[in-house]
Amino acid sequence: VVVVGGGFGGLQAVRGLRKAPVEVTLVDRHNFTLFQPLAYQVATGALSPAEIAAPLRSVLKRQQNAHVLLADVTGFELAQQQVTLENLANGQPPTTLHYDTLVVAGGSRYSYFGHDDWHVFAPELKSLDGAIEIRTRILNAFEAAEVETDPERRQAWLTFVVVGAGPTGVEMAGQIAELAHDTLRGDFRTADTTSARVLLVEAVDRILTSFPESLSAKAQQALEKLGVTPLLGHMVVDIDGDSVTTRTPSGEVERIPARTVTWAAGVNASELAGMLGEQSGAEIDRAGRIVVEPDLTLPGHPEVLALGDMVQVRAGDGTITPMPGIAPVAIQQGRYAAKLIQQRLHGEPVEPFRYRDKGNLATIGRSKAVADIKGLKLSGFIAWVFWLFLHLFYLIGFQNRLLVLLRWLVSFVTRGRGARLIDDRL
Amino acid sequence: VVVVGGGFGGLQAVRGLRKAPVEVTLVDRHNFTLFQPLAYQVATGALSPAEIAAPLRSVLKRQQNAHVLLADVTGFELAQQQVTLENLANGQPPTTLHYDTLVVAGGSRYSYFGHDDWHVFAPELKSLDGAIEIRTRILNAFEAAEVETDPERRQAWLTFVVVGAGPTGVEMAGQIAELAHDTLRGDFRTADTTSARVLLVEAVDRILTSFPESLSAKAQQALEKLGVTPLLGHMVVDIDGDSVTTRTPSGEVERIPARTVTWAAGVNASELAGMLGEQSGAEIDRAGRIVVEPDLTLPGHPEVLALGDMVQVRAGDGTITPMPGIAPVAIQQGRYAAKLIQQRLHGEPVEPFRYRDKGNLATIGRSKAVADIKGLKLSGFIAWVFWLFLHLFYLIGFQNRLLVLLRWLVSFVTRGRGARLIDDRL
Repeated sequence: VVVVGGGFGGLQAVRGLRKAPVEVTLVDRHNFTLFQPLAYQVATGALSPAEIAAPLRSVLKRQQNAHVLLADVTGFELAQQQVTLENLANGQPPTTLHYDTLVVAGGSRYSYFGHDDWHVFAPELKSLDGAIEIRTRILNAFEAAEVETDPERRQAWLTFVVVGAGPTGVEMAGQIAELAHDTLRGDFRTADTTSARVLLVEAVDRILTSFPESLSAKAQQALEKLGVTPLLGHMVVDIDGDSVTTRTPSGEVERIPARTVTWAAGVNASELAGMLGEQSGAEIDRAGRIVVEPDLTLPGHPEVLALGDMVQVRAGDGTITPMPGIAPVAIQQGRYAAKLIQQRLHGEPVEPFRYRDKGNLATIGRSKAVADIKGLKLSGFIAWVFWLFLHLFYLIGFQNRLLVLLRWLVSFVTRGRGARLIDDRL
Repeated sequence: VVVVGGGFGGLQAVRGLRKAPVEVTLVDRHNFTLFQPLAYQVATGALSPAEIAAPLRSVLKRQQNAHVLLADVTGFELAQQQVTLENLANGQPPTTLHYDTLVVAGGSRYSYFGHDDWHVFAPELKSLDGAIEIRTRILNAFEAAEVETDPERRQAWLTFVVVGAGPTGVEMAGQIAELAHDTLRGDFRTADTTSARVLLVEAVDRILTSFPESLSAKAQQALEKLGVTPLLGHMVVDIDGDSVTTRTPSGEVERIPARTVTWAAGVNASELAGMLGEQSGAEIDRAGRIVVEPDLTLPGHPEVLALGDMVQVRAGDGTITPMPGIAPVAIQQGRYAAKLIQQRLHGEPVEPFRYRDKGNLATIGRSKAVADIKGLKLSGFIAWVFWLFLHLFYLIGFQNRLLVLLRWLVSFVTRGRGARLIDDRL
C-alpha cells in the first residue's frame, strides 16, 4: 500500500493499517505532519513551529509495517500501478514506486480566485512555511511602524487585512488584534500598536458561514470587541503590496492602504487531484477536487482511493453532498480507507463511507469560541474550554501536548507570546 | 547612548543603564537575543529556535529609557558621533543615528582560515539561521541514507564531521552521536543509523584545550563512549560537499567521504571591529579583534566602548591577556560598560575592567559534562547537573526556562527530540 500525503487523512490511513498484513509506504514532501488548525498560532508567535509539527518517523516509529519516504509525488501511472517520485533526499534522479493499493491524500491550498500573483503580497495560512512567512511579515510591520515618520505610511504598516472569514480567517484576525492591542502594548516607544486596524474581508454578508446565524453574530460581536473590523460583502479586487482594493455588491470600490495581508479564502485542491482525474477520466469540480465513488475509490480504479480536502464523494444515487474541508472529515476518511483495505483482504463486504458530523468549532481570541455540536450551540468561555481540550487531545505526540498546554497557560496568565521571531529580514 | 548588538554583552549594557538618566537605543539586525551556547541543541532538534531566543522588545519592555531599533549597522563616523544604519524595517533608505556614548558589541563568527568557500558545505554554529540550516542538513542526511542503495554513498550520508573540538564542537559531536545511536534508532527501515560515524576533527592534540588535561581526557572518554571518533592533530585542508580532506602533522593526507559537516573552529570578530579600527587607528589582531584600553574605550575615543568577542583588552602596562570568547566575559564587560557610563555622569573615578573567571563548563551528551571551577575539577553527572541549572538560570525569559526544562525532562525520560523539522528541502 502506498499512501501519498502525511496530513490528517493520510496518517490515519497508515495507522489504521498497523495490524494489517501489508507493507505501507507513506510518501510526503515534509518530514513532519502538521497540525494545521493551529498554524495561525505560529503565524502570530503564540506557538513554535515544532509544537504543531510531529516528525512522521517518530509518529510511526513503532509501526513496523510502515515506511516513510521523503519525496515529491509528481505523477501517477495508473495503468502500471506506479507513482513517480522526485526530489529524493539523496539528490538522485526521479524514480517510480509500485503499489497494489494507492491512497492519495494530497490536501488543498487556498484559492486566489485566478489571481495567483497576489500570493507574494498575501501569503496563505496552509503550510508551516506560510505561517512562518506571515509571522515574519506581521512582526516586521510593527518594526516598520516604529521607524516610520510619515503618519500615513505608518498607518499602512499598522493596517492588517485578513481575507476570508472562515474559522481560520476569524482566528487569525482575532490573534492579530490581540497581538497589537495586548501582547505588544508597551513594547514600542514611537508606534502605538493599539492604533492598529485589523480588517476581516469577506465576500459573503456574515462571518463563519458554516455555523448557524446566531453563532456567526456572537462570534462577530466577540471579534469586534477584540478590535477587529469585519468588512462583510466586500470582494477583494486587487492586492499590490501597498494596499488592498475591495468592491461591495453595489459597486463601491475602496482602496485600503495596508502592507500586511493574510490569505485564508477559497479552496484549491492539491494538483494530485487533477493528475488522477486526467488518468482516470474522473470528474474534477471547480475547486480542483476529484469526484470519487461512495467508497472513496477512483471510478474504474478500485485499487486507488483518494480522500480529504482534495475529493468530493458521490453518494450511491449519484448526488454529491459537499463535506466541509476540515480535519474530522479527513480523519474519518483515512480510517475508512484503512478499514476498506482490510475488509477487501478478508473478502468482506464494504459499506460506503459516511461522514459523522461531530460538530463545528471556531475560536475567537483568548477565552472566546463558538461551537455547534449537533444542534447544541455553545459560545463564550465554555466553548473555548471545549475547544482547548479537543485541540490538545488531537495534537499528535505526547510531548507537544504538554508543551503546548504549558505555553498556553503561560500566555493566558502573562498575555505574552514566546515565539516572536523574525526569521528573515524582508 | 547607542548600543550596537543585542547579544550577551550589549543586552547587559542596556539593562545596566535602566536607572541611569540616559536614553538608550539598542540596534540589532535581529528582533531577538540568542542564547548562543544552546544553538547546538537547535541544530540537533532538541530545542525549538524560539526556546533559545527571546524577543528584544519583551526583554526590555519595562525599561522605559530603552529603545530597540532593527537595522544593520554598516558604518561609523566617529568624528561626527554617528552610526550608519541600513535595512530598516520599513524599507526606507540608509540613515544615521547620533550618539553621545557608543557601545559596540558585535560579537564574532567562526573563522574558515581563509577558506570562506567552505562555508556552503560546512555551515557554522553561531547564528540561529546557521543552527536551523545544520538541523535541516543532518536530518536530511539520514533521509538520504534511507533511500540510497549504493553502500558507499550511504556511508557518506551517514558520516558526520564536526570541525573544531572546543566546547561547541564537543557538544555538537556528542549530540549528533546521540541522535544517530539513540533518538533515531528504529525510525528508519533501511538505513542503520547506529552505523553512523561522527568524526570530531581538531588540529591540536587534545579536545577542550581551554580545560586542564585531566578533564580533556575524561571528556574524550565520554565522547568515545557516545560513539564519537576524535581525529586529533588533523588539519582540515579541503571540504567539497562530498568529502573532507585532512592532514596530520606528519603529512599524511586522508580524504573522508562525508556529506554533512558542521564548522565550529577559529574566531573571526565582527566586521564592526575592523570599521572601528579604520576610523580610530586602533590595533586589530589576527582574528579581526580590536584592541581596546583597560576601560574598554577606543584609543583616543573615550566616548566609544567596545566589548565582547570582538575585542582584546590591553592592560595598564600595555600587555594583552587574552580572555576566552565566552558569554561570562561579554556579560561582565556589558555590566562594566553600563557602570562606567554612570560613573562618568556622576564624575566618579573609573577602575579598569577586570574579568572574574567563574569557571569553565562543557557538556558531552545526555548526563555527562566537565567543569573547571577555580581549580575544582568536576566531571560526569554532577558536572552535568551543575551545567543544567546554570544554563536554565541564565536562559533569558521566564517562559523559556520552564519550556526548556520541560522539554529536557521529557527528552531525558523518553530520549526523544521534539523539534526535528526539515524546514527546506535541499
